[in-house]
Amino acid sequence: MPGNSFGQLFKITTAGESHGGAISVIIDGCPPQLKLSEADIQIELDRRRPGQSNITTARNESDTIHILSGVTDDQTTGTPILLLAYNEDHKSEDYNHLKQAVRPGHADLTYQQKYGLREWRGGGRASARETLARVAAGAIAKKYLREKLGVEILSYVEQVGDIKTNIDFNKVSLTEIESNIVRCPDQVTAKKMIQLIETVKAEGDSLGGVIRGVIKNVPAGLGEPVFDKLPADLGKAMLSINAVKGFEIGSGFAGVTLRGSEYNDKSNKQAGGTLGGISNGDDINFRVAFKPVATIGKIGRHDPCVLPRAVPIVDAMAALVIMDHYLRHKAQNL
Amino acid sequence: MPGNSFGQLFKITTAGESHGGAISVIIDGCPPQLKLSEADIQIELDRRRPGQSNITTARNESDTIHILSGVTDDQTTGTPILLLAYNEDHKSEDYNHLKQAVRPGHADLTYQQKYGLREWRGGGRASARETLARVAAGAIAKKYLREKLGVEILSYVEQVGDIKTNIDFNKVSLTEIESNIVRCPDQVTAKKMIQLIETVKAEGDSLGGVIRGVIKNVPAGLGEPVFDKLPADLGKAMLSINAVKGFEIGSGFAGVTLRGSEYNDKSNKQAGGTLGGISNGDDINFRVAFKPVATIGKIGRHDPCVLPRAVPIVDAMAALVIMDHYLRHKAQNL
Amino acid sequence: MPGNSFGQLFKITTAGESHGGAISVIIDGCPPQLKLSEADIQIELDRRRPGQSNITTARNESDTIHILSGVTDDQTTGTPILLLAYNEDHKSEDYNHLKQAVRPGHADLTYQQKYGLREWRGGGRASARETLARVAAGAIAKKYLREKLGVEILSYVEQVGDIKTNIDFNKVSLTEIESNIVRCPDQVTAKKMIQLIETVKAEGDSLGGVIRGVIKNVPAGLGEPVFDKLPADLGKAMLSINAVKGFEIGSGFAGVTLRGSEYNDKSNKQAGGTLGGISNGDDINFRVAFKPVATIGKIGRHDPCVLPRAVPIVDAMAALVIMDHYLRHKAQNL
Amino acid sequence: MPGNSFGQLFKITTAGESHGGAISVIIDGCPPQLKLSEADIQIELDRRRPGQSNITTARNESDTIHILSGVTDDQTTGTPILLLAYNEDHKSEDYNHLKQAVRPGHADLTYQQKYGLREWRGGGRASARETLARVAAGAIAKKYLREKLGVEILSYVEQVGDIKTNIDFNKVSLTEIESNIVRCPDQVTAKKMIQLIETVKAEGDSLGGVIRGVIKNVPAGLGEPVFDKLPADLGKAMLSINAVKGFEIGSGFAGVTLRGSEYNDKSNKQAGGTLGGISNGDDINFRVAFKPVATIGKIGRHDPCVLPRAVPIVDAMAALVIMDHYLRHKAQNL
Repeated sequence: MPGNSFGQLFKITTAGESHGGAISVIIDGCPPQLKLSEADIQIELDRRRPGQSNITTARNESDTIHILSGVTDDQTTGTPILLLAYNEDHKSEDYNHLKQAVRPGHADLTYQQKYGLREWRGGGRASARETLARVAAGAIAKKYLREKLGVEILSYVEQVGDIKTNIDFNKVSLTEIESNIVRCPDQVTAKKMIQLIETVKAEGDSLGGVIRGVIKNVPAGLGEPVFDKLPADLGKAMLSINAVKGFEIGSGFAGVTLRGSEYNDKSNKQAGGTLGGISNGDDINFRVAFKPVATIGKIGRHDPCVLPRAVPIVDAMAALVIMDHYLRHKAQNL
Repeated sequence: MPGNSFGQLFKITTAGESHGGAISVIIDGCPPQLKLSEADIQIELDRRRPGQSNITTARNESDTIHILSGVTDDQTTGTPILLLAYNEDHKSEDYNHLKQAVRPGHADLTYQQKYGLREWRGGGRASARETLARVAAGAIAKKYLREKLGVEILSYVEQVGDIKTNIDFNKVSLTEIESNIVRCPDQVTAKKMIQLIETVKAEGDSLGGVIRGVIKNVPAGLGEPVFDKLPADLGKAMLSINAVKGFEIGSGFAGVTLRGSEYNDKSNKQAGGTLGGISNGDDINFRVAFKPVATIGKIGRHDPCVLPRAVPIVDAMAALVIMDHYLRHKAQNL
Repeated sequence: MPGNSFGQLFKITTAGESHGGAISVIIDGCPPQLKLSEADIQIELDRRRPGQSNITTARNESDTIHILSGVTDDQTTGTPILLLAYNEDHKSEDYNHLKQAVRPGHADLTYQQKYGLREWRGGGRASARETLARVAAGAIAKKYLREKLGVEILSYVEQVGDIKTNIDFNKVSLTEIESNIVRCPDQVTAKKMIQLIETVKAEGDSLGGVIRGVIKNVPAGLGEPVFDKLPADLGKAMLSINAVKGFEIGSGFAGVTLRGSEYNDKSNKQAGGTLGGISNGDDINFRVAFKPVATIGKIGRHDPCVLPRAVPIVDAMAALVIMDHYLRHKAQNL
Repeated sequence: MPGNSFGQLFKITTAGESHGGAISVIIDGCPPQLKLSEADIQIELDRRRPGQSNITTARNESDTIHILSGVTDDQTTGTPILLLAYNEDHKSEDYNHLKQAVRPGHADLTYQQKYGLREWRGGGRASARETLARVAAGAIAKKYLREKLGVEILSYVEQVGDIKTNIDFNKVSLTEIESNIVRCPDQVTAKKMIQLIETVKAEGDSLGGVIRGVIKNVPAGLGEPVFDKLPADLGKAMLSINAVKGFEIGSGFAGVTLRGSEYNDKSNKQAGGTLGGISNGDDINFRVAFKPVATIGKIGRHDPCVLPRAVPIVDAMAALVIMDHYLRHKAQNL
């Protein structure tokens, strides 16, 4: 199957480049009778929006979402939901210099290798704008999970370059995460991160970092035993985000130096919320590594550090995975 | 969909617990006219086999593979291939003490939570024996990739506990990997790893570690732009292996501290063989973190360190991903 | 998986009700570098358009198609193509009387039973307007098949009520089919059909009938041996169209009274173009039975006989099936 | 995806030719805690078994089923169930004459065209023996549906050649169906059918016919609105059976001559149990057309009329469709 769908029972299919008419997503399989308005989705999109602060790209796009099907009288009907955000007019000539160029560290080359041609205006499907569709669809999953199951998803920036917070992920709140523009709930470290980003931005360079994902109140029993283990599907979800180069659950890479007797204690703390690939009712936590993005081209149009705006994307992908596995579990076992 | 299939065009579906009749796998979508014998598969299974050295489990299982369909006159027919290895007789009473017990760090609990019952004899589908099916199916993919495309897959043990080799992954060979029982191509470090495993085994404890995966001669253009990026599918494949808790491609977590200008140089060395989720023709390299497994129960029946035997599993999963993406790319673009 | 996708490698996902913002379809998996413009799609949509003659519904909708992604410089890019036709403004009050009513022979009841609510304005997803998305996506498949493989798809109306043509399906041409408003290439019978439709329309009643589908120049080897036989996937495609109640390939139901020695002669004429579920290079022919649609409500807004406008829908679904199976065959065997 | 899987949530994957080691099926997604023994499956297989009467093939195969995984203490565990029936030893020399021959009306030709080679011993995957896997898997679905939902599936032979019963399908019982070797519940017509089959068998020829499928007590709400309508999936299921050339639901092809006002009355009798592709709670009925099979080769080894043995296959496929749609409906809406 082509690669533009995600999920099996709560299935999303996305389309759209940064140039062309629109970014869109069809959500198929959403349970009926969920209260849903455009505002429910817009609130998450606004967290992803370019131009929201001076440490993100200077591009200012409104990203207004439209629900074009699947909702009647403010309720989901159980039929496919089409969400769409129109692209604003771009001057194509801004990109004319890219028609021939192949940017290092960028997908220009591989798209050309794969398809024999490419949308050279703005990166095509490799544009970060594609993630708008993920966040929009994820907002619906997030709403369902919160209202029906009490699930709460709280991702935040844990590391920018070599600046890292050691805050306890069990104790962060959405208010703290949203209280600064870098989305790090440790306010002291957040300030250092912002300073670093500003410095690097001034240099025309870029920074990577790590996002910690936290999912609270996940019902036990989600995840399938063999290939579709919950960590496997979470890992795939995160590694499918632009610029992500690593994923770990629980103590991950650090845990490999522990002895089995330390690792596998009764608390299951190292595990990160799953055993044998299935949620055990503990909160799930994982970490996602973002590389520093390529910065060639007009730097003002790129984020010096994608992480603050990637937080809602990580949230969205986590919501999509949990939602899908919840429906799968419900089908077979509930 | 239930979680016991992997791949879309080269699709495998596995069944079987450590107890019960057999471990089996159906491979659907294998191209026709590939020369294939049971010996081609057995050779990979023997790398995974328990009891192959004194640092693995003392269980001695022969794991003889049978091709029950899909091959005629030593060639694949294009129809589904059933591979099957019978389970040897186990004394169920060996496991009677587990009927009630729920082992910490183990899937016993979550299977019970998910299904309301569990195969308590030997771990059910959570048994490491399930990976036999992966290695068997992967052997076919590996053979096709090697013979038709020249792809070579070379995974090896890079770290055991806190002992790590810094050998250049570009330079390892299968001969070096297979020249010692821990499957680390750096012979000096290998000796230290073996010593450590023996010590920990004597203590009745277990060790984690890291496997480095290397895939050479991957054609450019494999991987799908958005959700089914090659690193995402490789990550999922690895994270679906028992005891795996982390995955990174290229410089992964370490790369997050680099500046964009360093990371995205013309060599694309940090990237690990993909750009925008699509192979660019460079060798692919990634790292897989294995936790130290739970050791409660008869320790003699478990591996003190699963990594040496996990090397062929990582190879197999890598082969399955590349094979599947090759067929997907061929369908749309070749 | 939810039921709004069709195809595996040339995969379409549709969304949209007759009321709400738009009817849309995402085509994922289209090969790159196919010349494509909105006009290529509009020409097929115009064959499906309401209000095209006095024997179709009096509703006059323009159904203008927009390509919102996946095409650059008039070529497909290999990434998802979003096609969208906006719904025109409907006066919802036209439908207020339907809010409580459940129309006999109509999906109102079953949607309510399934989802616990329904889009009562205009039939929701059960509206014939949904087929617009099929025709739009099918137009792309048809173009690819024609240009790359020389495949020609020629469906026509063979029967309306009890009036039937015996024209040889091997000899019909698109010109003949399109030369009258009922889309029956036998001009004498066509006149009778039109008369009957006009009579029945005047009575406020409706008519069923049969469409014959013909697919020429299908390459041998398409179709999968067991579950995804070509006739099985063609049958599903047709039976998924609103109002379809039967499908047969080759001599179908009539062939059951023949002896094996008659049926299975060297010509394979009875078979209809497949053996063992796989195309053998002969032209494929099949028949599709349409029930007379429910007519309660404002009759002027419904077709007295859906068949003339269903011809391009049958064409489209046939194109989607052949295209998908061609890519599947290519992936494994070419 | 390759074509050897069927269903999405109750998913079966089959493998095996008439020659080679075994016919097998993996059922993935079966709910846990269903009581299941080999005898539950064998009873359905015995209805399909060759050699069960003098109007079926003279081949006498025992078709003993083995459960090799997924069941513990006589209950399903929720993990994949592997069912397997070993092939008995065949003298390959019996088939040596087929190595070059391509039988008219048979899949020999198209397999060769598709794959470039074929299993020439006994027809490979095109062998009727493949249906054993369907019946075995269907037996589990049937048992679940009967025990949990009260669904009853009652297919029978309605027509053989030109001999047809007009018995009311609402009134047949399993006892009546099983009371004669042709599986027609109208005992008078059954006798005529048997006579006709015996005559044609003596002539070395073969007969087609029609099976009526009846599914009672189907819950309302099964089936998906657009592509995966219940009649579409039932149609695909039936058209995927060897020798099937037509499918109709409710009054099907005959219904096309009715006026809308007759067809769509309040009884919904013509519809056959679905409206808009979704079950409405009425019993479902459909008809399946079987061609007379090719008879070249040793006639004693073939059925002169496949219909009596096809009845349990139609039952099985119906059960698989209903089961799958029940789980899909449960996932989204229950």
